[in-house]
Amino acid sequence: MASSTISCNATDLIPAAAEFICARFETVSGKFTDAAYAIDNTYLLFSAYLVFSMQLGFAMLCAGSVRAKNTMNIMLTNVIDAAAGGLFYYLFGFAFAYGAPSNGFIGKHFFGMSDFPKPTFDYPFFLYQWTFAIAAAGITSGSIAERTQFVAYLIYSSFLTGLVYPIVSHWFWSSDGWASPARSDNLLFQSGVIDFAGSGVVHMVGGIAGLWGALIEGPRIGRFEQRSKPLTLRGHSATLVVLGTSFYGQWSAVGRTAVTTTLAGCTAALTTLFGKRLIDGYWNVTDVCNGLLGGFAAITSGCSVVEPWAAVICGFVAAWVLMGFNKLADKLRFDDPLEAAQLHGGCGAWGIIFTGLFADKTYVSEIYGGDPNRPFGLLMGGGGSCLRRTYVTMGTLFFVLHKLKLLRIPSEDEVAGMDPTSHGGLAYMYTEEEIKNGIMVRGVGREDDHVHGHVGVL
Amino acid sequence: MASSTISCNATDLIPAAAEFICARFETVSGKFTDAAYAIDNTYLLFSAYLVFSMQLGFAMLCAGSVRAKNTMNIMLTNVIDAAAGGLFYYLFGFAFAYGAPSNGFIGKHFFGMSDFPKPTFDYPFFLYQWTFAIAAAGITSGSIAERTQFVAYLIYSSFLTGLVYPIVSHWFWSSDGWASPARSDNLLFQSGVIDFAGSGVVHMVGGIAGLWGALIEGPRIGRFEQRSKPLTLRGHSATLVVLGTSFYGQWSAVGRTAVTTTLAGCTAALTTLFGKRLIDGYWNVTDVCNGLLGGFAAITSGCSVVEPWAAVICGFVAAWVLMGFNKLADKLRFDDPLEAAQLHGGCGAWGIIFTGLFADKTYVSEIYGGDPNRPFGLLMGGGGSCLRRTYVTMGTLFFVLHKLKLLRIPSEDEVAGMDPTSHGGLAYMYTEEEIKNGIMVRGVGREDDHVHGHVGVL
Amino acid sequence: MASSTISCNATDLIPAAAEFICARFETVSGKFTDAAYAIDNTYLLFSAYLVFSMQLGFAMLCAGSVRAKNTMNIMLTNVIDAAAGGLFYYLFGFAFAYGAPSNGFIGKHFFGMSDFPKPTFDYPFFLYQWTFAIAAAGITSGSIAERTQFVAYLIYSSFLTGLVYPIVSHWFWSSDGWASPARSDNLLFQSGVIDFAGSGVVHMVGGIAGLWGALIEGPRIGRFEQRSKPLTLRGHSATLVVLGTSFYGQWSAVGRTAVTTTLAGCTAALTTLFGKRLIDGYWNVTDVCNGLLGGFAAITSGCSVVEPWAAVICGFVAAWVLMGFNKLADKLRFDDPLEAAQLHGGCGAWGIIFTGLFADKTYVSEIYGGDPNRPFGLLMGGGGSCLRRTYVTMGTLFFVLHKLKLLRIPSEDEVAGMDPTSHGGLAYMYTEEEIKNGIMVRGVGREDDHVHGHVGVL
Repeated sequence: MASSTISCNATDLIPAAAEFICARFETVSGKFTDAAYAIDNTYLLFSAYLVFSMQLGFAMLCAGSVRAKNTMNIMLTNVIDAAAGGLFYYLFGFAFAYGAPSNGFIGKHFFGMSDFPKPTFDYPFFLYQWTFAIAAAGITSGSIAERTQFVAYLIYSSFLTGLVYPIVSHWFWSSDGWASPARSDNLLFQSGVIDFAGSGVVHMVGGIAGLWGALIEGPRIGRFEQRSKPLTLRGHSATLVVLGTSFYGQWSAVGRTAVTTTLAGCTAALTTLFGKRLIDGYWNVTDVCNGLLGGFAAITSGCSVVEPWAAVICGFVAAWVLMGFNKLADKLRFDDPLEAAQLHGGCGAWGIIFTGLFADKTYVSEIYGGDPNRPFGLLMGGGGSCLRRTYVTMGTLFFVLHKLKLLRIPSEDEVAGMDPTSHGGLAYMYTEEEIKNGIMVRGVGREDDHVHGHVGVL
Repeated sequence: MASSTISCNATDLIPAAAEFICARFETVSGKFTDAAYAIDNTYLLFSAYLVFSMQLGFAMLCAGSVRAKNTMNIMLTNVIDAAAGGLFYYLFGFAFAYGAPSNGFIGKHFFGMSDFPKPTFDYPFFLYQWTFAIAAAGITSGSIAERTQFVAYLIYSSFLTGLVYPIVSHWFWSSDGWASPARSDNLLFQSGVIDFAGSGVVHMVGGIAGLWGALIEGPRIGRFEQRSKPLTLRGHSATLVVLGTSFYGQWSAVGRTAVTTTLAGCTAALTTLFGKRLIDGYWNVTDVCNGLLGGFAAITSGCSVVEPWAAVICGFVAAWVLMGFNKLADKLRFDDPLEAAQLHGGCGAWGIIFTGLFADKTYVSEIYGGDPNRPFGLLMGGGGSCLRRTYVTMGTLFFVLHKLKLLRIPSEDEVAGMDPTSHGGLAYMYTEEEIKNGIMVRGVGREDDHVHGHVGVL
Repeated sequence: MASSTISCNATDLIPAAAEFICARFETVSGKFTDAAYAIDNTYLLFSAYLVFSMQLGFAMLCAGSVRAKNTMNIMLTNVIDAAAGGLFYYLFGFAFAYGAPSNGFIGKHFFGMSDFPKPTFDYPFFLYQWTFAIAAAGITSGSIAERTQFVAYLIYSSFLTGLVYPIVSHWFWSSDGWASPARSDNLLFQSGVIDFAGSGVVHMVGGIAGLWGALIEGPRIGRFEQRSKPLTLRGHSATLVVLGTSFYGQWSAVGRTAVTTTLAGCTAALTTLFGKRLIDGYWNVTDVCNGLLGGFAAITSGCSVVEPWAAVICGFVAAWVLMGFNKLADKLRFDDPLEAAQLHGGCGAWGIIFTGLFADKTYVSEIYGGDPNRPFGLLMGGGGSCLRRTYVTMGTLFFVLHKLKLLRIPSEDEVAGMDPTSHGGLAYMYTEEEIKNGIMVRGVGREDDHVHGHVGVL
């Protein structure tokens, strides 16, 4: 809600009455500013919760997608993303990202939230930005799952949320970032920008970092050993994958954005459903979930500036992009346990091209003002910078960790699983009595049917 | 929040000053309209997320309630409801439901969201309505679980969300639906209507469609084969059932509505707890969850027009209605794996009678205006129409699919489970190493206790 | 948002015009009151949903933390907390807590929500308070898990949510509770109070009740039987623990509060991660989750009056407090399956000391007005009262139940698990076919690989 001043010129009226009336209007104007502030911050705060539930969804998605022996490990990495990300983003990440005025490359104010809050951003804004930072780290965790040393993960996660991601986000969204659209005082505009490029950058940064990590680590043991075709190392729980996916989709933003996001995801899910049915011969659940996420990743950069029908096209193509990149990854013996590089990197890249092709000029100037012909160039250039930057920093980091023998776990640990070797035990635990009582070998221990009352099994 | 104009008559004042002051008041009035719009849309948008989390809850509830061998199948059907529902509701469902002005029977504007948004409804309203449409399809999926061909599911789901449900909803909630309370310009009223009949129709349509589906398909293999009593084909995970139920309850609407919904659910849960203890002799968890949902289903039609004490009565009766219908279903050898027809159809029908009996006249005219004596007749008539309509369309559809041999899977597939036969594998997967490491036969493989550090088991 | 009247003095102007203008300003003023009301109630309502999702999170956390044979039992107790709590809080709990004017000790109005709503609190306020009451009961359920008779649980849960918790909350938050900060008419202030002491009291009451329950019941069979060191009776699913923890963290309140809560939790999680690594030699997941919750429990009493940097200190100390109390509990052979007494009681107590030490005087007088030096005394005194009150009531209750032999289940039931003995069966169920098809002994039954299509396992 805008809050332009209702100004009064006292000379237009009989002075005493005029002053009285003008004072009243100023009170009214102040109250509108208060109301707008309350609405905006409530909106940002609940949005932050929803984006954070994305992180929760990602934890579940990851947990279900790895083998049971690595479940504790991957859940811990997701908790660590939030915890280490929270500290580092508070200490300097936010300052690097939004510490304007800056030199256009890196912010330099608000370290440790000093001089906070400002009229232009309050605490909910910080939280909202933090949730995006940890989402980027979460994406990468999928690519390097099931084979990365925990210490290497700690280093990479802190580096990404505290330094790499904040700098990239400064370029695009801080008022004086070099690639940022010009600043406006209008709060709706501020929100429009957040929704817009926001998650585009998240997907690109996370996906490309994942690409380098998975490339340098190499595939998991057993993935490409067979001659004929790659072996799918299936996750241990599709239920968790579906649960995680649903959470993941539960965020978005005002009005049109939410609709275009929904439609792109739905179309991508259906396209994947029928596409995989044709290719593999069965109705696949986990691939449909990944298709859905691919549609979300693709639409995020353009969600606020395209028509609903264009979102349908975006989702349709995103599904084929993902299936194509997965095929290519198999060919190239590239092993990403959660398809994170293909999904967030590949579909994210398609999303940037898509926005250039389908952005509605009316919507763009409504949100960004100025010359309506620029978004294509801006976005394409932006995507390139994003790629280069993430390549340089994260590729280097992973390479150094690799050279220091800090990156990959020993192969005997990989076969045994990281939960027993690094995390004190497996995620699931059943006692001898529970097994005897039939929990797992129900049907074998038929004689204790009476324990279960009238309940029988087929 | 209402937004009536603060009009000014310039001739009452010294013209120049008057015009100046009046212009200011018009600005103020416009700002109030903006604020009301921002508040209403934020409210609708977050409500849509909460209702969507119902769908997520339903997916978990369904997954836990079926046997492990059909988990992939039922989760896929829930994802498909959202995806296919999203596309079809966008293409024509919303147009059929809210495309006023219409002939009173079916809407005819806004196909593919053309000419969208309007002052009367914006994107969040579309999303909110879409989430209800897919909730109706989700209810039916429970009734026909564990034995329905996937292609038949695709057809039924699209048909319900794109055609049947939108038409029924047009009758009751569109401004010119034949059974709709008269239209008002007041936004709070509009919201009142949504909460009110909204979910009542959802439960009825979903439940009755499920009734026909389960009837025509017949019971699952093994359910009624034994002489003495029906065999409960227990779901594989009560944890997922409880998780799903809790989500499911996490939606509602403004003020009183949320309180009455909570109280009806709580009472129904406690009634079921003690009722089942008396009947079966133990404290049942999954039945308590179903009782809770039965209380929610019953209260939805009247939640905004009854007193809290009436909600307690509503929940109490709903629990017995559900237990009674379940007893009856066993007698009649009717097999609904999730009790969806009994719960949503039965408790939903009780809810309509309850609203007629207990609606507070003050609340009704506060929300609907006009003659306070009408709701009983309106609702009872409405319930009847809803029943007939769903009977004619969905009963016919299921019958046709049945005749075409498209409805039920082959019995060997049913015994083996649909996950291995149609979806490429089971939902849960443990490797040989994980078993050797003790995940499942913990206690047998005692010798590797040292792997787990200091952790022991009883 | 404040809603002070914009008063007009008609004699300052030409009477007719003045009255006209003044009437307009009064309309404007009324509309601001409406807008503030709509924003406040929307905020409270969605906050209630988020706090309720804490209860859902707690159910999952509990389910994962107990052995599989008691999963049904603990999930039922969590559902019962919400259901029985809902009814009793409606019937008299809310009246005891907020039924001002009172004698300062116990409220006496609004039984069964009579004379509801008031201008000072509406339905969303009731829901928000209810969710806190059931959260307190949930904490205690963890302490007495895996060995408490279900009937004893029903009695204790009703007693806590209907009587003990409401009375304690009356003292601190009702406008005329003896320990309450003086009442203000300002709505923002009201909200400030809710966030502030709110959850502090919740953690203390729940934790101390759990302490008494666990003490009087004694440790679970097998926990302290071995000479050398206590045996950890590990929960059956770490995945559920992580899932539950994440939900649990997803609530908080306006602005600064949400930031301090996030930072305290993150710091506590990281401190626990490295602390446990040093002590036990591995990277523990479930302890990190408990550390996170310990940080939340500690910060809740001071979250609105401390600086972000102080929250970091709060979380750091909370982690060590929790690790220390856990060590002590092992020494004293005190068995709390979820560490609930240590976590909520211990870290909650540290939180009260912390607030006294670190509360920023500017923030305190911003929220509470008056003498900025009082909070330390107030809080310390409050903590003591809270302790005594909960000791007297809940300690006595548990002792009486114990003497009546109603508290603890027979030891043969404890070994067999409560699910088969009281709840009609185990939470998880797999049929003979599913096992043959490879769900659990995948790798043993290699010959049926063809069933799974192209999918292989390592």
